[in-house]
Amino acid sequence: MADPRAPRPHAADVSSDPPEPGPALRVAVLTISDATSRGERADGSGDAAAAWVATIGGTVAARAVASDDVVPIVRLLVAWCDDDVADLVLTTGGTGLSPRDVTPEATRAALDREAPGIAERLRAVTGATFPRAALSRGVAGVRGRTLVVNLPGSTSGVRDMLAAFEPIARHAVDIVRGDVTSHDAEQAARAGAVR
Amino acid sequence: MADPRAPRPHAADVSSDPPEPGPALRVAVLTISDATSRGERADGSGDAAAAWVATIGGTVAARAVASDDVVPIVRLLVAWCDDDVADLVLTTGGTGLSPRDVTPEATRAALDREAPGIAERLRAVTGATFPRAALSRGVAGVRGRTLVVNLPGSTSGVRDMLAAFEPIARHAVDIVRGDVTSHDAEQAARAGAVR
Amino acid sequence: MADPRAPRPHAADVSSDPPEPGPALRVAVLTISDATSRGERADGSGDAAAAWVATIGGTVAARAVASDDVVPIVRLLVAWCDDDVADLVLTTGGTGLSPRDVTPEATRAALDREAPGIAERLRAVTGATFPRAALSRGVAGVRGRTLVVNLPGSTSGVRDMLAAFEPIARHAVDIVRGDVTSHDAEQAARAGAVR
Repeated sequence: MADPRAPRPHAADVSSDPPEPGPALRVAVLTISDATSRGERADGSGDAAAAWVATIGGTVAARAVASDDVVPIVRLLVAWCDDDVADLVLTTGGTGLSPRDVTPEATRAALDREAPGIAERLRAVTGATFPRAALSRGVAGVRGRTLVVNLPGSTSGVRDMLAAFEPIARHAVDIVRGDVTSHDAEQAARAGAVR
Repeated sequence: MADPRAPRPHAADVSSDPPEPGPALRVAVLTISDATSRGERADGSGDAAAAWVATIGGTVAARAVASDDVVPIVRLLVAWCDDDVADLVLTTGGTGLSPRDVTPEATRAALDREAPGIAERLRAVTGATFPRAALSRGVAGVRGRTLVVNLPGSTSGVRDMLAAFEPIARHAVDIVRGDVTSHDAEQAARAGAVR
Repeated sequence: MADPRAPRPHAADVSSDPPEPGPALRVAVLTISDATSRGERADGSGDAAAAWVATIGGTVAARAVASDDVVPIVRLLVAWCDDDVADLVLTTGGTGLSPRDVTPEATRAALDREAPGIAERLRAVTGATFPRAALSRGVAGVRGRTLVVNLPGSTSGVRDMLAAFEPIARHAVDIVRGDVTSHDAEQAARAGAVR
């Protein structure tokens, strides 16, 4: 039985899950919205993404707002990835079917290669209770040693899709960083009681 | 309690779901089949799509049959979208793994951009009870202000995939038409008791 | 009641499923792994794929090991497909997010056209119990009359994804070979008690 006078362990240690390995995740958040970039709408989706970063013990390494235009989006994604500002970049907004929604095209232009299974999972898990998740055209993938994931523009959509992303977030980043191989990660996961 | 002598409300009003907004959906149906185009097979899949349009209160704005060739398919899709004949184009057939199945390639050539989540949802929901839905290579996406969705060539496949599409059909079209933004639609959906 | 002295029927005959039609599936297995190609790691994933082939009554028509490089992978896939060595080619490994994982890109270069629904199904079914399946970037598709399916590099990942593939494997191959049309296959499936 634990000594109640001992120093209180880090929250992760008292969880029923095994503690997450490695240093805190560095996450950059890019809000993509004409209205927010003009100061006409509060950045609810970016705030929701930043709040999630805190819940997983990560740090918000950078935040920015861009209009729904390809050039500023690509420029920011490339700069953050190539300067190694973050392990993970989350974008919010611009993933829908409206003419001004260009986030997937801009993200694809910045990526070295796509990870379609991540985008599929985010839509499928969210879509089980919210069918309109199918209307998100968001993509995910890798540039250099940074993972980039598109999220929708609504606060609740960001929360739902990050809940679907959370079980794979840490290991996806570890593999992209080269800290573990897919083999290592998969064997460790299956050895433990990973859901 | 409702007065039984009062005028009977429109069916949509007595539903537990909120009434669908906006005017009747204009749907064009393109059957893609060598056999049907030669008059050797009845157009069961096109009829099934047209019957679905009636069940959602839409109107069949156009119908045509094309052989399994890229040029006539692209020509019809482009004409219907650019002349604004329909809000939604449903194609049936030509989505499989046979050499003559070219519908996805032809559709992609006509689209401004794809909406992969729609095609994923149609396969995933149908695939839960009919695994061979995974063999459909159908795509979905937008050209101009028209949404285009590929369906398989069998009557039952059309019915199953339209059942999976129905919960998102109206709002997908509203967003493509620019009648609502993704934000508006999502907030309205979450405010109501949308599944 | 069956006579216990009668010759024991083939296992497939006592199954509750209808017997699989047609000749034994010819399957080629390509293991893609730097470590295995250098002789530093046993070929567990290739062995798992070969073991599955035996369970479905197929024959292993060819086996090879390639390093994680595009050229040898494309060369083997093209040779096996164009020489009609196999009805189905299974690759293992190289589907992840590490810089050396190039299997999807190499496979795509060899394919005439992709069948995204197969890759989606493998990830979705496996992902229901093992979320990291979403990190596989594996593709599936057709070159000539051969179906090609990418599997992950871990033994358990191969087993899980082949279990998800099995319900559609035979009919996917039959359609690619031109032995049945999509229509035939679908009508037969729905007429029977296919799940």
